[in-house]
Parts: sequence; C-alpha cells; structure tokens
Amino acid sequence: MNPTTGISTPIRSELSREQFCELLRGQLSLALTQNELEQAKSLLLPVQPVDIADVIGELPEAQQALAFRLLAKDLAIRVYEHLDLELQQVLLQELKSHEIQDILDKMSPDDRAKLFDELPAKVVTALLPQLSPQEREATALLLGYAPNTAGRIMTPEYISLKEHLTAAQALERVRLLARETETIYYLYITDSERHLTGTLSLRELVMADPAQLLGEVMNREVVFVSTNTDQEEVARVIQRYDLLAVPVVDTEQRLVGIVTVDDVLDILEQETTEDIYSLGGVQSGEDDYFDLSFWSAARKRVVWLLVLLFTNTFTSTIIAGQEEVLSEVIALAAFIPLLVDSGGNVGAQSSTVVIRGLSTAVVRLKDGFGVISREAAVGAMLGLMLSVITIGWAYALQRDLSVAIIVGLSLFGISVLSSVSGAGLPFLFRSFGLDPALMAAPFITTIVDVLGVLIYFYTARLVLGI
Amino acid sequence: MNPTTGISTPIRSELSREQFCELLRGQLSLALTQNELEQAKSLLLPVQPVDIADVIGELPEAQQALAFRLLAKDLAIRVYEHLDLELQQVLLQELKSHEIQDILDKMSPDDRAKLFDELPAKVVTALLPQLSPQEREATALLLGYAPNTAGRIMTPEYISLKEHLTAAQALERVRLLARETETIYYLYITDSERHLTGTLSLRELVMADPAQLLGEVMNREVVFVSTNTDQEEVARVIQRYDLLAVPVVDTEQRLVGIVTVDDVLDILEQETTEDIYSLGGVQSGEDDYFDLSFWSAARKRVVWLLVLLFTNTFTSTIIAGQEEVLSEVIALAAFIPLLVDSGGNVGAQSSTVVIRGLSTAVVRLKDGFGVISREAAVGAMLGLMLSVITIGWAYALQRDLSVAIIVGLSLFGISVLSSVSGAGLPFLFRSFGLDPALMAAPFITTIVDVLGVLIYFYTARLVLGI
Repeated sequence: MNPTTGISTPIRSELSREQFCELLRGQLSLALTQNELEQAKSLLLPVQPVDIADVIGELPEAQQALAFRLLAKDLAIRVYEHLDLELQQVLLQELKSHEIQDILDKMSPDDRAKLFDELPAKVVTALLPQLSPQEREATALLLGYAPNTAGRIMTPEYISLKEHLTAAQALERVRLLARETETIYYLYITDSERHLTGTLSLRELVMADPAQLLGEVMNREVVFVSTNTDQEEVARVIQRYDLLAVPVVDTEQRLVGIVTVDDVLDILEQETTEDIYSLGGVQSGEDDYFDLSFWSAARKRVVWLLVLLFTNTFTSTIIAGQEEVLSEVIALAAFIPLLVDSGGNVGAQSSTVVIRGLSTAVVRLKDGFGVISREAAVGAMLGLMLSVITIGWAYALQRDLSVAIIVGLSLFGISVLSSVSGAGLPFLFRSFGLDPALMAAPFITTIVDVLGVLIYFYTARLVLGI
Repeated sequence: MNPTTGISTPIRSELSREQFCELLRGQLSLALTQNELEQAKSLLLPVQPVDIADVIGELPEAQQALAFRLLAKDLAIRVYEHLDLELQQVLLQELKSHEIQDILDKMSPDDRAKLFDELPAKVVTALLPQLSPQEREATALLLGYAPNTAGRIMTPEYISLKEHLTAAQALERVRLLARETETIYYLYITDSERHLTGTLSLRELVMADPAQLLGEVMNREVVFVSTNTDQEEVARVIQRYDLLAVPVVDTEQRLVGIVTVDDVLDILEQETTEDIYSLGGVQSGEDDYFDLSFWSAARKRVVWLLVLLFTNTFTSTIIAGQEEVLSEVIALAAFIPLLVDSGGNVGAQSSTVVIRGLSTAVVRLKDGFGVISREAAVGAMLGLMLSVITIGWAYALQRDLSVAIIVGLSLFGISVLSSVSGAGLPFLFRSFGLDPALMAAPFITTIVDVLGVLIYFYTARLVLGI
C-alpha cells in the first residue's frame, strides 16, 4: 500500500513520516552506539530539519548532544529551532561556548526570544553578551514587549525598501538580502522616518516593468497590526486577509517587524488547545499537559474540581433540606441525576456554540439578543421533546403519574433555563472583556445545578400540594 | 486611542476593522438608496476584497446584487470568492449569464469546486458548459475526488518546470505565468511523465546563479501528500514543515495539484470547530451552526441529548431499585448529583487532554499505556483530595459519620474510574480507526454515571450492612 503522505527520497517512499522517523531513530542510535559517526552523519543528510529534531528528541539522553554535533552548522541551527525548549536548554549546557554562540547568533530573533523566555535570568545574562551587537538588540527589542503580543512573536528580519527605487533595483536588493531575512515574499516600503507607506509582494515585483518606481506599483492600503496586538488577533488578521506575513508597527506607526504565517499556525493551535482545555475544565499554560510533572498535572485540574464541589455543596444542601418531600415520595430521588445531567448538557451545547462563535468571530457582541432568543426557543423545543419521552418512561418505571409529571415539567423548565444561561453568560463575560472560554463553564454549571434542583422540588411541592 | 490592528488608508487609520466595515456598510447603503452609484463605487475602491464581501453580506438583500455589480471585473472575482456560499448562489440567479460566466471562469478551481458542491446538480449541469474547456477540466478533476481530501481542496494552478532549464530561463517562465497561478513562491520540477522530482522556492531561484540548471539547485527531498490524504493531515504536514504550499500527487506519483497555506488555515479552523462541537455534544457539519434553521439547529443537538437520556434511564432505574437503602438512609440522596457531577468532570478532563493530544499528534497510540497509568494516578490523587474535603463537609451537613464515609469512599472510586475511562476510551476508539472526539463523550458519561451510582449504593450496603 502506498502511504498517503510521505517524503520522496528513494529509501522511504514506501513509509509514512512516522514510520520513517521511527526507523531512522533506530538506525541512528545503533550507529552512535557502535561509534560509526560517518554513517550516522550520512543517515541525517537528506532529512528535513523538523524530522531530525524529532528523531534527536527521541534518542537516549546520552546520545542527544552527540547526534546534534554531527550536523553541519547551517543545518544544526535549523534543527535547533525545532527542538523542544527543554532539550534546547540541555544542549546549552552540553555544547562548547563557541558552538552555542554560533547557534544563538544565527537563530531567528523570535525563536531566540522564546528560548530566552524559558531560561533562568542568570543564564540569559551570561548569554546575551555573546551575541553580535545587532542580534542582541533584536532580542532585547522582542523581550521588551508583553508575552503573547505581536511585539514578542514578530521578527525584525524583513526587507524594507524606499519608494524611489525601480523594480529592477529592488529585485537586486532582494537578491542580496534573501539569505538574511525571514521572508522575501513581501517587501515593505517605508519613508525616511521608517513609517510604513506601502507593501509589494515579490510576485508583483517580478511582474512589474523593471523601470517602474516602487512608489508607483506598491499597494498603499496596508493591513497591519501593532506591537501590543494580542497574538490570537494577529493570527485572525493573517487568516482573514490570506497573508503570508503581516507588518507590525509601534505606537508611532513605524515599522518594527513582521509576523509570518508559519508562526501563526502554531499560535492558532496553541490558542485552540487553551480553549478546548478550558471547556474541558483543565487549566492551560505554556507547557504541554503531557510534559508536566504528576503534581503540576493534578494542580491544573484541581481548581475546577473544587469549584464544582463547592457548587455541589449548595445542591446537596438544597436536597438535604427537602427530606420532607423526599421521604414522602422517595421515587423523586431516582430522577435527580437525569435532570441535572440533561440541564448540564443542554447548557454545554449552547455555551459551546456561542463560545466558539465568539472566538472565531462568526458571532459578534451585537448579535447577543438574537442568539440568546434563538437558543431559548431551541431549548424550549428540545425540552419539550425530552419531557414527553421522560414522562412516558418515568410513568412506566414508577407507575406514579404525579412523579412523572413533576419530572417532565421540571425538565422543560431546566432546558430553557440552561439554554438561556449557556448562551447568555458567554456574551456577558465577553462584554466585560473577559474570556468566555475560561469563565463560562463553572457559572453555567452552578446556575443549572442549583436552580435545576430548586425547580424540581418546588414543582414537586406544587403538584403534590406539600 | 489607537486601534491595535487596522488598515492604513487615511480615512480609517483610527478605526478597527470591525468599526470600519460597519461605517462603510452604512455609507454604502445610503449611497445605493439615493442611487448615487459613482459615490458608492468610490467608497469600495480602496477596500480589501474580504472586507467588501463582508460589507455586501450585511447589506439589505435588495442592494446586494447592485453593490456587487459596481465592482471592477478583477475585483469582483476576488470578492465573490469571499462571499458566503449562500450569497454566491443568490448572485448566480441575479446576475446576467455573461457576468456569471466571467466570474466562474476566473475563480480559483478549488473555490469553484466548493461552490459547485453546494449547488443543485441541475444548476451545475447548466453552468459547466459555460466554462472554458481547461477550467471545465480542472473543476471536473477536483469534483472527482472524495470530499475533505487533498484532491478536492487542491488547485491545479501551479508552476511546473523541467530540470534542464537554467535559473534565468526559469525566472522568465515564472514572470510569464505569475498572473495565472495560485502561488509563484514554490516551483515544482517534473520529468517527462509528470512525476515530481524536486522543488525549488522562488527565494532559492532568485539567489541561484542565473546560469545554473534547475536540476543542480532543486531540492530532491520533497514533502508531498496524495490526492486521497485527509485534509486535516494535509494541514498538519504544512504546519509541521513550515510550508507555504504542499504538492499533491496521484496514485502513480504524478503531480496533479498543490494545497496552499491560506486554505489550510481555514481547514484547521473548521476541523477545530468540529472537534469542539463534538466535545460539547453538538453534531457538526459543513454549515455554520448560526446559519442553520431553527429545526436543523435542534436536530444537531437532539441526538446527543437522547443518548444521555437513555443513559440516565439506567441510572434512574438503578436508583429506583435501591429504594430500600434510600428509605433507610434518606440522606444518601443528597449526594447523588455531587458524585455524578464530580465523576463526569474528572472524566471530561482526562478525555479532553487525551483527545486533544491525539488530534495534535502530541500523543501517539503507542503512548497509550503510559498515559492511562498516569491518568489513573492523577485521578487517585484528585479523588483523595476531593474525598477528604467531602467527608468533612458531608459530616458537617448531616452529622452522620457513616453517610460521610460512604460518600468519601465512593468519590475516590469514581475519580479513579472516571480518569481511567476518560483517558482509555479515546485510545480504544482511535485504535479502531474511529474519531475519539465524536465517540468518547457518550460512552464515558454512561460508564461514569451507571458505574458511579452502582459504586455508591454498594459501598452504602457494605458500610451500613444492609
């Protein structure tokens, strides 16, 4: 069978990427163990940097620095950028100081800033002076901006040109600068004070008449972000306008960097993981959950469980206060989980669609009233269906019509309540500038559980005349 | 205050994109109402296509076709590609047949295939003959592949070159073809049978010695996907290798198209929405939830609610069967929601991290045993903490030590059970080739609820000696 994706060098055309990395790791480890360094070197020669990083990451610890040293200098830098932050730090201790200097100096400023963020301050202080002056400046610039903003994730390595150049002159400049910049596919045109006045894609430059001035062919409507724009918003701008990179300007509208689309893919994945974790009741952070220690993993989860436990003490207290009703009609107890679960689920459905809608900008704050009304109607519709089924089934189970009616009526009320609070709370939090994904779930659960049980027992009292 | 993102034309440098679109919509609608078409035209002139599409989408229906007709031909095509599928279809009915022909002929084949997918077969049959022969062929090619595969989302508009060209000749070809291809930033080198033999980025071409042959400078290790590769996998490959586009080959390894990174951003967003919806108990599909009719929205949610209701009939039946225990110690009823909720939450936490880990390939199938063991340990740890707190609180509430101990012991057991099933079921489903995001939640809920209640009552019987 052919693999559905692959890498077309002869030895591995029949393997998937994962199988290939697995195989390579085995061969490499064997060659290193037998000290056949030339063979190990040739194994890594035709491999993509990110795959090499993966393979080195899976090697036994004792072999990692050795394997890394086998790489040619240029390749080593590209591999280093793909290593886990943890392994990057380990290598900093293992490598000789001139090797470290070489790598750090040639890393992209944004990747270097990410690494320095993780290192102890003492280590950073020791490393910074080893950088060349302009790389040091670039790093300090990035580290000066708040985490998760455009300023922190941008790279200052872009091509900026002046309006009075001809297309032919510009192309010559691009050729000269190609090796040192993150992308050559967008060119940024600035005035004498570094204000961004226009952009030109390499495609447009290639198509332009060589004698034309950049000022004549450039686009003057520039989509840009500021250094303090949140990284998720940066990602949305790049996605919306189908860009390969977006320019970043400072508070005086001067061009200071660009953010490229490959970084955006990683940012979107990280932000999505945070949203999904929040919806699942797990705190998220910079680190991957599976890299966390046992204690840290437990800590990420305990807060939400304690909040829920606290909520449940209310619910339990309410139920305990209704012993009078319960002892009269003990059958009522059997339906408590059904009501609480159904309410929780209707609420989770509404909050899921609204939170996702808000975070992808499909739904906006001003749509709030319409969305909540519709959710109320959908909740009523769903509640009606569930109620009818439940009444029939509850009667079949207990042969007690009043119990069946109490359960059905309560379920209808709980469905509407859950839909409305599930849809409404995310809008409420967003309008206060809070992240609905983080905040909504505990509040919705509390409302649905506490009010749900109250609805149930007061319906019971009403129907039974207690 | 400066906006954090913006578009730098003079009139709107102080506005955010959303404010700007809102303002533009108002001005445009007014101009159209007063029939000042020249003014309306000039309003749209300096605006990004995707923003124009947004603004037209928000206009009153009667003005939409009118506004669209004001656009210059080239711009109209780019705007059309950004319109909602629904509005695209409406315009097909409103526009004259030569206008339609122009638009369809110049659309990207992948966007056209997406539109044709949505149209009634009768309309497609009427439209296809109006396309130029090569565009018709391109569309038919794409429509021949299964939905959500690389074949369906690729574009056949790429640049392919032969090895024996010099860099200078290649650059000349690129210049000629730039207008008609989706991207010029990657060049694909094929042999006489259209087999993909190498790639070259425009950056590498620009840096190469003009006299060098492509065969000498091209990269022979090519990352590729097949026409039948799932679109999510395509997105992951582009993300992993930091590509701007990935080539697509057919079963004979011949190059047939490319998928570009801008499409990948949309695919990842759509796939993520599907995952999040599944975790929240809402069925997902091609259409946006907020565009659905009232009935369709209800239908997307009712299945999962019915599954849960069915589960709860078991739980309720079990509780109803324990009336003997309950009537003896009525206080036990008060803690049922606490146990069921806590179990559900611990299970949701474990399944959330594992499902997300599997879908981002941070966790692999072979890690299953380690992950499940760790989750069991974390579940035990969390269970212990929750139990201790709950025992203290339950005793304070009811002044009954046996009830407090029953609740505490059960909570511990339920935590471990929930963690293990929450972590284990996603691996189980994945190993059968099923999507864990779709399948795991109902099963975990059922297991936790049913077994949780059983654990509770059997612990009670044991402790109370009933």
